[in-house]
Amino acid sequence: MVKKVLKFGGTSVGTIKRIQHVAALIKKELSLDNKIIVIVSAMAGKTNELIKLSSEISDKFSKRELDVLLTSGEQVSCALLSGALINLKVKAKSWLNWQIPILTSGEHSNARIINMHVEKINEFLNDGGVAVIPGFQGISKQGDITTIGRGGSDATAVATAKIFNADTCEIYTDVDGVFSTDPNKIPVAKKIDKISYDEMLELSSLGAKVMQSSAVQTAMIYDIPLEVKSTFTERKGTKIFNQENIDYSKSVTGVAYSKDDAKITITGVEDKPGVAANLFEPLNKAQINVDMVIQNISSDQKTTDITFTVKRDDILKTKMILKENTKINYKKIIQNDKVAKISIVGAGMVSTPGVTYRMFRALSDEKINILAISTSEIKLSVLIEEDNTLKAIKKLHTTFDLD
Amino acid sequence: MVKKVLKFGGTSVGTIKRIQHVAALIKKELSLDNKIIVIVSAMAGKTNELIKLSSEISDKFSKRELDVLLTSGEQVSCALLSGALINLKVKAKSWLNWQIPILTSGEHSNARIINMHVEKINEFLNDGGVAVIPGFQGISKQGDITTIGRGGSDATAVATAKIFNADTCEIYTDVDGVFSTDPNKIPVAKKIDKISYDEMLELSSLGAKVMQSSAVQTAMIYDIPLEVKSTFTERKGTKIFNQENIDYSKSVTGVAYSKDDAKITITGVEDKPGVAANLFEPLNKAQINVDMVIQNISSDQKTTDITFTVKRDDILKTKMILKENTKINYKKIIQNDKVAKISIVGAGMVSTPGVTYRMFRALSDEKINILAISTSEIKLSVLIEEDNTLKAIKKLHTTFDLD
Repeated sequence: MVKKVLKFGGTSVGTIKRIQHVAALIKKELSLDNKIIVIVSAMAGKTNELIKLSSEISDKFSKRELDVLLTSGEQVSCALLSGALINLKVKAKSWLNWQIPILTSGEHSNARIINMHVEKINEFLNDGGVAVIPGFQGISKQGDITTIGRGGSDATAVATAKIFNADTCEIYTDVDGVFSTDPNKIPVAKKIDKISYDEMLELSSLGAKVMQSSAVQTAMIYDIPLEVKSTFTERKGTKIFNQENIDYSKSVTGVAYSKDDAKITITGVEDKPGVAANLFEPLNKAQINVDMVIQNISSDQKTTDITFTVKRDDILKTKMILKENTKINYKKIIQNDKVAKISIVGAGMVSTPGVTYRMFRALSDEKINILAISTSEIKLSVLIEEDNTLKAIKKLHTTFDLD
Repeated sequence: MVKKVLKFGGTSVGTIKRIQHVAALIKKELSLDNKIIVIVSAMAGKTNELIKLSSEISDKFSKRELDVLLTSGEQVSCALLSGALINLKVKAKSWLNWQIPILTSGEHSNARIINMHVEKINEFLNDGGVAVIPGFQGISKQGDITTIGRGGSDATAVATAKIFNADTCEIYTDVDGVFSTDPNKIPVAKKIDKISYDEMLELSSLGAKVMQSSAVQTAMIYDIPLEVKSTFTERKGTKIFNQENIDYSKSVTGVAYSKDDAKITITGVEDKPGVAANLFEPLNKAQINVDMVIQNISSDQKTTDITFTVKRDDILKTKMILKENTKINYKKIIQNDKVAKISIVGAGMVSTPGVTYRMFRALSDEKINILAISTSEIKLSVLIEEDNTLKAIKKLHTTFDLD
């Protein structure tokens, strides 16, 4: 007997027909002698609709009340799915955030699940029942409703799998799994059968929208096997687990891209020790994440240009902090947000020589200029002009035998 | 300092604009040095929308899950109204059914509020806060979500007023108050300034949709002054309280009508003692409420016809029970649901002679045939052909000086 956590995203429960389809799918899983805990998102579009209502009242709508408002969305899908299961003669029951309870710490709209009471639900599972739990939410120690951030249902699923000691956690969504690159842009993109947590993490944080990064991280820490699969097809999904379980025939697993970054260049900075520290310390304090950094060789031996990237959302804040920084002198600040970050990801990269060279050569063949570079053990990212995004992805996908 | 419970119905919070209007109204009440507890319904149309979703899954949708589903509606309006109040710099907070908690007994979809914890909310009120509470719901001893029937927000308001020892309970709605008859049908209908609980009860149960009957009943038992008023005008509403506080200048307070009844005639019943008992006992057991009863004088001294009314919804069940009844013999059952019940209501009736006579004469003047009659201390109802409804109401409204 296998204990499974099954998570269904917003599109999977977006209509009554789909909810009924999901109920049938769960019934089948139950008939295979599994114990089933289900996590559901709000019906597709619902959360945005509720946010819109609140923003008609105020852009600074009370965070406490926003959490009360938004969590109603999962309450609805929980009740409908439980009702659909009962209608199929499946023993099922919704358990709301306070009924379990799902205990969280942290602030409203950005809480973290720290515990769930397992006894009653385990009893119910032992009696052959399916427990249906709302994703994305919990309650604080003070008994207030909290949410755990957009896409938080993935985090709920992984936390549930961990706390209930589940054997596996399956993320049902509207795509077949994780792809070698965005299948909407590159038709030859291929579904990846197996991928390591690290690679998945890099892909998620680099723009692959399949799973929420922090959920993958939690799964990695607690070694919870994940599977991302489609609610609507019978195809096998992508299994995500420990690197050691994966046989790497290819050095590169996937190509990701993101348009979340912006490039900032500061010209005419004094070229002396301590300047970079003085420059980046206040940004760090303000929790602005600086990704890629390049320092030009100074032509006059006295001043230099420093280029770095930050998230586009942080651009205004970054420029404000730079202007208020009295410890550095500079000529001017140049901003460019028409850039894209293209990354190749693969746990096999570290043991395969020449990957870096092959990437640079491929881009050069396409006459694509590299504006900045950053690397990690399993990832190599370059910043390029946004217009070149598609061309770059296509070329790299072919270069690393992913087509 | 006056402690008030203010209840806002679905149309009063039907849009964001209206929610903001209600927030401003509450702010004003608070500035008058009142302590305010607010009860809100779901936004207009929301509950029906949710019921529709559940019925797409099944007509026999799980009652437990239906309660989970429906209560999300008030959760939404609670959060939006609290957020709107906070946006107006009013200290406010939503308290959900389990956060208070609102304890109920009885079955799903038909529970009854038995208690609420008052300490924390009283503390909040003492600090100048407005507590916003969802109507229509509670939790059971087992910690399941329950609802207290359609229109149950009125019941929540009255129960809250009782449990929190409020000085008054104001029911905000989309009409100006209680009228002498249906203002949509009879333009000369007049708003009643003061009315007794008994009269209000009769009017509610006779078809005036302004307030839920059981809520009026609770208010009467615990002597909680009610006021029904419009959310959208500044006009005075209708005050509902003890009879002794009301000065009756008129014998009749209002004319009500309902089309909920059906007439059943059983012909050729043996005319001997015990027949009526044998006839009505099984109906009573099946909880079918028999309202008006007429027994014809038998022409042949051996058989008679018995006519009575039941709710239209109970007609099929009634006929089935009659057919299964082996203790009575009869020729046939004749059914007529094209009937209307017209009632005059007034606490002054009992002390005013001739009201009955004047009613019959008025109907006779209009050539309206009376099919059945029932009376109580403060009410006189007649059954007539449905087609005559409007004519009868108009005539009675004039006859008893209500225009």
